[in-house]
Amino acid sequence: MTYAQQMIDTYPKSITMDRTLIADTIDSLMTCSQACTACADACLSEDTVAELVRCIRTNLDCADQCDITARILSRHTGYDSNLTRSALEACAQACASCAHECERHTHHHHCQVCAEACRHCEQACRQLLSAMS
Amino acid sequence: MTYAQQMIDTYPKSITMDRTLIADTIDSLMTCSQACTACADACLSEDTVAELVRCIRTNLDCADQCDITARILSRHTGYDSNLTRSALEACAQACASCAHECERHTHHHHCQVCAEACRHCEQACRQLLSAMS
Amino acid sequence: MTYAQQMIDTYPKSITMDRTLIADTIDSLMTCSQACTACADACLSEDTVAELVRCIRTNLDCADQCDITARILSRHTGYDSNLTRSALEACAQACASCAHECERHTHHHHCQVCAEACRHCEQACRQLLSAMS
Amino acid sequence: MTYAQQMIDTYPKSITMDRTLIADTIDSLMTCSQACTACADACLSEDTVAELVRCIRTNLDCADQCDITARILSRHTGYDSNLTRSALEACAQACASCAHECERHTHHHHCQVCAEACRHCEQACRQLLSAMS
Repeated sequence: MTYAQQMIDTYPKSITMDRTLIADTIDSLMTCSQACTACADACLSEDTVAELVRCIRTNLDCADQCDITARILSRHTGYDSNLTRSALEACAQACASCAHECERHTHHHHCQVCAEACRHCEQACRQLLSAMS
Repeated sequence: MTYAQQMIDTYPKSITMDRTLIADTIDSLMTCSQACTACADACLSEDTVAELVRCIRTNLDCADQCDITARILSRHTGYDSNLTRSALEACAQACASCAHECERHTHHHHCQVCAEACRHCEQACRQLLSAMS
Repeated sequence: MTYAQQMIDTYPKSITMDRTLIADTIDSLMTCSQACTACADACLSEDTVAELVRCIRTNLDCADQCDITARILSRHTGYDSNLTRSALEACAQACASCAHECERHTHHHHCQVCAEACRHCEQACRQLLSAMS
Repeated sequence: MTYAQQMIDTYPKSITMDRTLIADTIDSLMTCSQACTACADACLSEDTVAELVRCIRTNLDCADQCDITARILSRHTGYDSNLTRSALEACAQACASCAHECERHTHHHHCQVCAEACRHCEQACRQLLSAMS
């Protein structure tokens, strides 16, 4: 059991959504954020960095949006569905953009792993959005 | 002239949107993020903190979304309008939610100042969204 | 194998420190950050929130410092040992402060889990600092 | 009067340090963070990006550390001087490292502006550290 699951299981009040679904999404978001930060850095270290600037930029945006969406999903007090929904939509878009870009560079192993993390995270965000409606 | 304006004026390539409009939005986002972080903390220090938990939570979300939207708008390389647009929409929603909550507590001066920063930032995000379409 | 390990294994250049040690520290930092964000929120939802304001504040600081230390450790290009070291020291301090505070509230299960995550992360940061010297 | 000053002036309890000194430091931190994010992106857009990878990396670290130090200084409830001090020290180091790197590239105007923001912020952090002791 991950810490995200443990933390949500110890939340003392009720939560409207399924706790395991939220915990799994948080884990996907943290994983994706870290993969994007590391992929941006790995791209920076490539001799062909000039061809990877769009990838680096999208990685940075995606890491930022995933980080804060994980934070928003880690909060349950004073829940505002409009705010959560719009953050998840922004995050699904960031992951889709970043996956699309990384998939163009899958001869770089870091882009391959990052694209996988982004696609997984995009799917997790969309699944949670579906469960909310 | 703020640093955001100076930084965007020294960006060496072309930018599709108006540089001053972007710089002003970045300034509004940073101001709003800081106001939200400070308002959450001021609420925590109030004797009536139990009545302010929803305000604190919305403050935290809004600070997070403003922070990363300011970062996204500070990047111009490899611009992806879908990603920028969805972050701005999430941010306008976060600011609207937070302003709505802070306006219920305007007898607390920190909520009054924060509500003003949120309404100003929401408007800035919506204005930039209009300019993008 | 976690994604942090996969990402560091695909970094194309040399890294001066042990890759598994860094990846494990990144995992501890992300776990701790999320636990702190969730613990702050769980504290907010407690009827005794007024007694937990110091815990909430330390949680917020610790989450912030862990998040960015995980980012700094995820970057290897243009490594600056002074910068990495001072971030790790700040993070070990934030974890120690937060663990100390959460340990005072271990009758709240979320504080118990969070204290464990903080102590583990503090230890990971100190272990990496030792390996650097 | 900036919003940071307004927010700290509306904090309802006592603060041990000078409010204007803290507000000024927060403003310097936010300015520096944004300059670093923008400088990293401007470097990415340069044809000579391969020569700027160390600058980009240090920019990213500095932006992260400044962001969260601004957050920590925006919180006064449950103040922990050890935590604040170590964050300020990490931030002064990050600013010094980034200024040192940007000053090597002052033929790029964005590096010139960023170096100025970093030196100013480093000084603000050190001044606040002196005032704390």
